[in-house]
Amino acid sequence: VVVDLLGVLAYGELTAFNRLAVDAALAPSLTGRAALSEMAAAEIGHFQKLRAYLTSLGADPEEAMAPFVRPVDDFHDSTAPRSWLESLVKAYVGDGIAADFYREVAALLDDPTRALVLEVLSDTGHADFAVREVRAAIAEDPTVAGWLSLWARRLVGEALSQAQRVAAERQTLVELLVQDADLSAVAAVFSRILAAHAERMATLGLNA
Amino acid sequence: VVVDLLGVLAYGELTAFNRLAVDAALAPSLTGRAALSEMAAAEIGHFQKLRAYLTSLGADPEEAMAPFVRPVDDFHDSTAPRSWLESLVKAYVGDGIAADFYREVAALLDDPTRALVLEVLSDTGHADFAVREVRAAIAEDPTVAGWLSLWARRLVGEALSQAQRVAAERQTLVELLVQDADLSAVAAVFSRILAAHAERMATLGLNA
Repeated sequence: VVVDLLGVLAYGELTAFNRLAVDAALAPSLTGRAALSEMAAAEIGHFQKLRAYLTSLGADPEEAMAPFVRPVDDFHDSTAPRSWLESLVKAYVGDGIAADFYREVAALLDDPTRALVLEVLSDTGHADFAVREVRAAIAEDPTVAGWLSLWARRLVGEALSQAQRVAAERQTLVELLVQDADLSAVAAVFSRILAAHAERMATLGLNA
Repeated sequence: VVVDLLGVLAYGELTAFNRLAVDAALAPSLTGRAALSEMAAAEIGHFQKLRAYLTSLGADPEEAMAPFVRPVDDFHDSTAPRSWLESLVKAYVGDGIAADFYREVAALLDDPTRALVLEVLSDTGHADFAVREVRAAIAEDPTVAGWLSLWARRLVGEALSQAQRVAAERQTLVELLVQDADLSAVAAVFSRILAAHAERMATLGLNA
């Protein structure tokens, strides 16, 4: 189960790297392209740590990631940004939700695994840039906010639908999440994640 | 002139990052995708050092890079790999020639700038992976060698033609290269770079 969790996290980081690097081409300035590229590069550092840990557990990182290739790729294929602002919202909102989710899961893990997961999540940073750019775009043209709010809702919807697919196929992951926890505790996890998402949307100047 | 040189180097690193990250999608395995992604991530570290140094010189990194956007982009557009092996040869051969070129130029620079350029060039690494993959592909199907040799020749040809364009537009860069050096010294630089290129081609199992 730990290998499953680290596998989806590792593949998520590797893919986030590749997608952010591609999205960087949408940047209107070299400064913007550099900023998104640096966000991407941070993900590869996380990937390396997760891969090393998987190997130390005796797992094959490629095998650990394999079950999650399709759902993660499908998520990204169905949410390919068509503009620079869409790519910034996706980077900021997507990173935020993923980090919150893994932080909740980390609480259920053994000490060394939890320490690794929290370390991987801690040094994302670079988010200030996305917030600044999105807010500036909304200040310049307020109609942008409605469209980006819809975009963020689509991101969350697609993420949930892929997560459900994974949950249906990997019962053990679900059992980890609900082990010695009643359903109200699970509900509390989701409401914490959604509250944090709403806060991030407000930070961007968007409606959740 | 130093700003020009650091500008083209910085833009080259940023672009190498974005292109390698895109090429990583061609990888036949997650291990290969991760390896090329890690090569890409190393370039962004170099970019960050060059940008910080440009800023410390009082230069605007975006302005310093601007004159080189077209030639560098044109080089990459005209040499977009159509297969995983082409992308590996491009990464290995392209990185190698660029590093040799900057090393030669570094000898002409002041001490702190030279130290930075050499540092940026030193920790590329990751090349073993490309060499291993290309050699394995040739071992499996020797006809691959002829096609990849032609590909490498095209890469060198396109690189030279873009370099000539830059040279024609940025006379000061050329003057730096030939300052207090007679033409035979310049010829010696080129023959050293080409000799090193031929060695790398041999390492891959290809003809220069």
